[in-house]
Amino acid sequence: MKAIAVISGGLDSTTLGYLMRDQGYKLEALSFNYGQRHRKELAFAETVARDLGAPWTLINLEAAGIGRMLRGSALTDASFEVPEGHYAAENMRVTIVPNRNAIMLAIACAAAGSSGAEAVALAVHAGDHPIYPDCRPDFIHSFEAMERIAMEGTAQISILAPFSSHSKADIVQLGDKLGVPFANTWSCYKGGEIHCGACGTCYERREAFQLAGVKDPTEYAAEPVFQAP
Amino acid sequence: MKAIAVISGGLDSTTLGYLMRDQGYKLEALSFNYGQRHRKELAFAETVARDLGAPWTLINLEAAGIGRMLRGSALTDASFEVPEGHYAAENMRVTIVPNRNAIMLAIACAAAGSSGAEAVALAVHAGDHPIYPDCRPDFIHSFEAMERIAMEGTAQISILAPFSSHSKADIVQLGDKLGVPFANTWSCYKGGEIHCGACGTCYERREAFQLAGVKDPTEYAAEPVFQAP
Repeated sequence: MKAIAVISGGLDSTTLGYLMRDQGYKLEALSFNYGQRHRKELAFAETVARDLGAPWTLINLEAAGIGRMLRGSALTDASFEVPEGHYAAENMRVTIVPNRNAIMLAIACAAAGSSGAEAVALAVHAGDHPIYPDCRPDFIHSFEAMERIAMEGTAQISILAPFSSHSKADIVQLGDKLGVPFANTWSCYKGGEIHCGACGTCYERREAFQLAGVKDPTEYAAEPVFQAP
Repeated sequence: MKAIAVISGGLDSTTLGYLMRDQGYKLEALSFNYGQRHRKELAFAETVARDLGAPWTLINLEAAGIGRMLRGSALTDASFEVPEGHYAAENMRVTIVPNRNAIMLAIACAAAGSSGAEAVALAVHAGDHPIYPDCRPDFIHSFEAMERIAMEGTAQISILAPFSSHSKADIVQLGDKLGVPFANTWSCYKGGEIHCGACGTCYERREAFQLAGVKDPTEYAAEPVFQAP
């Protein structure tokens, strides 16, 4: 069994890589520079791939000229502030990068086809669903159905999203069991020297370790601004 | 009404651009370098865009590192021969570039979202269907449905494929009425100095003009090898 894992260098996709390896998949890791301001995550992705013994490919959407189409998000556009507070809150909508996952999955399916992999795996999780339409199960199913037609006669690629029903705390618990080196993962959207501790994804990361009852090895620059979602 | 037209520089997509303009769309043109050996078509695409007054964007999938995933086709891989003979014949299957259209459409939808366009247009036609699964109406419909989910809350993009029921001869007749400068379009897969006249797409191009009863302005290097499909 061979699979392409989309690995960002974050906690979720790193755990995904360890899970897939645990399940016996021969892995290839695919990461994307889409102009994210926290592109320092990509160095973490490379390390994860090396630790997993998975060939690592970086796709540079910026170099292709696609980056500017993905502006208009706080993740990719310096004219927006990265919002602070709870990840599931409405103010996090500004972190949507429209159509990012469709572009990444389409490229990952081509990679799967060319390397003889039967599956593409993505670490979307239940906590993503309120904000990001392209993280929801109906998106994953619809994308897989589309690819069945697109690649008919060439390859039939399954899209695996094993964390679709997992909270981030569930992922931390699973990663803890699998021996994921959480200190070697990057979440913070601000992409500074250390995790800022206040942005939506730092908030979510810290909360996940607390809820999971797993020691958080992350060094944060500040306490989060705790707000009800 | 604003639309993104995927324009390769060939006869079909050039006619698509003229049709869309005739229908009142404000157009942006998007072209792709995916490592095709006939990438000289891209210079024709740029000219078409200029003639249509449409801003032209070239997406360089080669520079992104995606090119090697699209190898294994006679269009992108020098270790394959470009097949000669009739376009619809089984030997043309070697010209399939797996998942090319899904990648191009996903990027075009992001472009549409970022520029406020409501539609993406692609020049797939009925003659493509026997060979290329990602040119068929069910692929187009499935892709559009997937994007409705992926971009929910951001944009709702229609995928237009007005030539889905057209033969290439129908497209030539339509282009003739619309004043398309056919001499300024490129089809040949071999990408030489002039159209080779013998490869599948040269065969198809010449046949289309003959069937349409429209004068063919193309200079061909050789007579085609006429074979029953």
